[in-house]
Amino acid sequence: MVEQSAEPPKPDRPLKVALLGCGVVGSEVVRLLVEHQADFAARVGAPLELAGIAVRRGGRHRDVPVDPALFTTDAHALVRRADIDLVVEVIGGIEPARSLILAALDNGASVVTANKALLAEDGATLFAAAEKRGTDLYYEASVGGAIPLIRPLRESLAGDRVRRVLGIVNGTTNFVLDRMDTEGTSFAEALEEAQELGYAEADPTADVEGFDAAAKAAILASLAFHTRVLASDVHREGITQVSSVDVESARAMGCVVKLLAIAELAADGAGVGVRVHPAMIPREHPLASVRGAYNAVFVESAAAGQLMFYGAGAGGSPTASAVLGDLVTVARNRVQGVRGAAASTYAQLEVHPMGETPTRYHISLDVYDRAGVLASVANAFSRHGVSIQTVRQEGRGADAQLVVVTHQAPDRALTATVEELEDLDSVRDVTSVMRVEGLGDR
Amino acid sequence: MVEQSAEPPKPDRPLKVALLGCGVVGSEVVRLLVEHQADFAARVGAPLELAGIAVRRGGRHRDVPVDPALFTTDAHALVRRADIDLVVEVIGGIEPARSLILAALDNGASVVTANKALLAEDGATLFAAAEKRGTDLYYEASVGGAIPLIRPLRESLAGDRVRRVLGIVNGTTNFVLDRMDTEGTSFAEALEEAQELGYAEADPTADVEGFDAAAKAAILASLAFHTRVLASDVHREGITQVSSVDVESARAMGCVVKLLAIAELAADGAGVGVRVHPAMIPREHPLASVRGAYNAVFVESAAAGQLMFYGAGAGGSPTASAVLGDLVTVARNRVQGVRGAAASTYAQLEVHPMGETPTRYHISLDVYDRAGVLASVANAFSRHGVSIQTVRQEGRGADAQLVVVTHQAPDRALTATVEELEDLDSVRDVTSVMRVEGLGDR
Repeated sequence: MVEQSAEPPKPDRPLKVALLGCGVVGSEVVRLLVEHQADFAARVGAPLELAGIAVRRGGRHRDVPVDPALFTTDAHALVRRADIDLVVEVIGGIEPARSLILAALDNGASVVTANKALLAEDGATLFAAAEKRGTDLYYEASVGGAIPLIRPLRESLAGDRVRRVLGIVNGTTNFVLDRMDTEGTSFAEALEEAQELGYAEADPTADVEGFDAAAKAAILASLAFHTRVLASDVHREGITQVSSVDVESARAMGCVVKLLAIAELAADGAGVGVRVHPAMIPREHPLASVRGAYNAVFVESAAAGQLMFYGAGAGGSPTASAVLGDLVTVARNRVQGVRGAAASTYAQLEVHPMGETPTRYHISLDVYDRAGVLASVANAFSRHGVSIQTVRQEGRGADAQLVVVTHQAPDRALTATVEELEDLDSVRDVTSVMRVEGLGDR
Repeated sequence: MVEQSAEPPKPDRPLKVALLGCGVVGSEVVRLLVEHQADFAARVGAPLELAGIAVRRGGRHRDVPVDPALFTTDAHALVRRADIDLVVEVIGGIEPARSLILAALDNGASVVTANKALLAEDGATLFAAAEKRGTDLYYEASVGGAIPLIRPLRESLAGDRVRRVLGIVNGTTNFVLDRMDTEGTSFAEALEEAQELGYAEADPTADVEGFDAAAKAAILASLAFHTRVLASDVHREGITQVSSVDVESARAMGCVVKLLAIAELAADGAGVGVRVHPAMIPREHPLASVRGAYNAVFVESAAAGQLMFYGAGAGGSPTASAVLGDLVTVARNRVQGVRGAAASTYAQLEVHPMGETPTRYHISLDVYDRAGVLASVANAFSRHGVSIQTVRQEGRGADAQLVVVTHQAPDRALTATVEELEDLDSVRDVTSVMRVEGLGDR
């Protein structure tokens, strides 16, 4: 149906690629570059030549199908080489990744990176350097592995207005929560299983405490709202406190617990809220069916309506696929002598604190089975201006329970309400507190 | 997190946009162009100015917030105007759309179209014209409405190898099949409901007979496999023959019936099969949860693994969102004086006929309850080299039933087997025949 692309101006030599890092992702990037050489040449308009691979220690990486002479332990010398056109950074972490990327950009190279932590902490510096030299800095692989997210948000929705982004962007925590829901296992058991299966690190902190998701939330929010958002701007709660009781309470109301990265426009359109926390979502919500270690990002925009992007959020091959998609684009831009669309911060909206963000809570209470309990509980909510959507009274005597779902209220009013509930004489115990998302705004 | 884009070379005047068609989609394009003027200027690097709107009859469209003087009934004169930079075609159909787009491209304008029928019938001519003049021809809105599909397939996965595309690309038929599954209604009742709700045309042929899906399948296959595929290359079966019995049989084996647009690489990688037909897919497959009139495209690629893109497949606003996303890109390319990545046909794989395409069947048979029935049925399969995965024997006496699920075999062997089964003495009736997808290749 479509025609061969017009021959782009051929450069007099192939484009030279420097690879920083040759671990799980890096070695897959090498393999694909070598395997699909001809395809890349056809798609780019010029051959891509692997010119050097920076590794921490030499003598290893024998499994990678390239001339061993390409390996070097001097990454700084590699990115400064005059003949390097394209630099792929898959080392991760802040340093030396940052100084290497800055050196590469300063050297006039286009850069493709998968480094979410660096982008979410100091992306501004990197993008400024890219602008200064008029080169490309692409980062599709930084969020959602192989799932095309950056490009759709930056380009496909450029004619639209994004209102909300709801993402399952951490496979480890989704695996754990999925197991807790489907197998009824505890958090500890599910985490152990994830570690045995290689879905979780020996030190799972970055995943289970939501740091990884917060970095990705910052990147998504920045793109969706043309506003600079840092990981440190993101309200972050992990899943270590999610109990079997929470999971059961969710099930009881037809919901499932997911760790969500949420970025949304304030009602007045003047600010954004960006947060990562576990939340109950209805089982019929498209995100509810995202199982195991898969990722998905759900986008609500003014014209497009609801969109969802689903796929493998991590792993060597998926991440390499995203890296190479970017590499083809920046290489092609280079052949044409242009830059791709840079993400922008022209809107520069204010990032609202969590306390001001409207949320809804699901709260389960063990109460004393006596007259006036419901009244005293209802008063606690009303004193903080929180309106109740539903109250379910369950059990009698020692098992008497109240399950409350609120309407939207500023998060600080809801947390204050919970504190007050904990002190009420009529309340024996607050057994489950969790935010509810995906029910619509009310 | 991200920086303001470097100032692109500003043209000495705004970019002038000609709109062809001002129906449901066109009027929404106008509304968004006017409403978000400033955003577009910031994203493109130059203001976009609506320079003319071609309509079939004048005197209408009073609801569109623009100077009535912009309306013209002379579309050919509009696309030939020397000052037009960008042309948006949302008329649909083959003519006059084709000659208008060709005239616009020949006039050096970049074109954004939502015209799936035209692209799938004669895209080659359009793309050749765009190449000849070095202008852009974008068409994100032609498949899946607002869902970013063209860009991800063409750019994000440029470093990967797509193996299979499974799509629910027609909202009308998905709504009908969803109703048949969830409400147990007949095809006729569900279609009537779809028409009442505006999901189906008065003449539903293009949707229910799979013509719409076949055009989209051709577009997706062309992109995914860098091969020219026409709508006429696509094997097409609609849903008019899907019965309540089929839907029940699917449910009995944990499946749901969907109308799928399928494009897949042959095992030897040398050819592609492209088809549209109803099929049973397991309820746990991500596509199974696509409800109502929503669309989704599921992509399997070598490195990225499984990806799914979900959203509203039709409607004025969603389609306008996709059109404007393209418009921003082609406008930005124009400001920079470059072309976007054109889809390519460098692979030019052979399109295999349906008969050679490996498929699996689910077949329900009413049989006579007597000795040797299973043997005679099994013989019919083996005579055509079709291997059986499972046989379920149900009921006794007059209700005796056999439910057979096969392994993969060339589709022609399976159709031949069904014909033979219909003639078997031991078979009273073949009550349901349907292909099964999403179970993996075996």
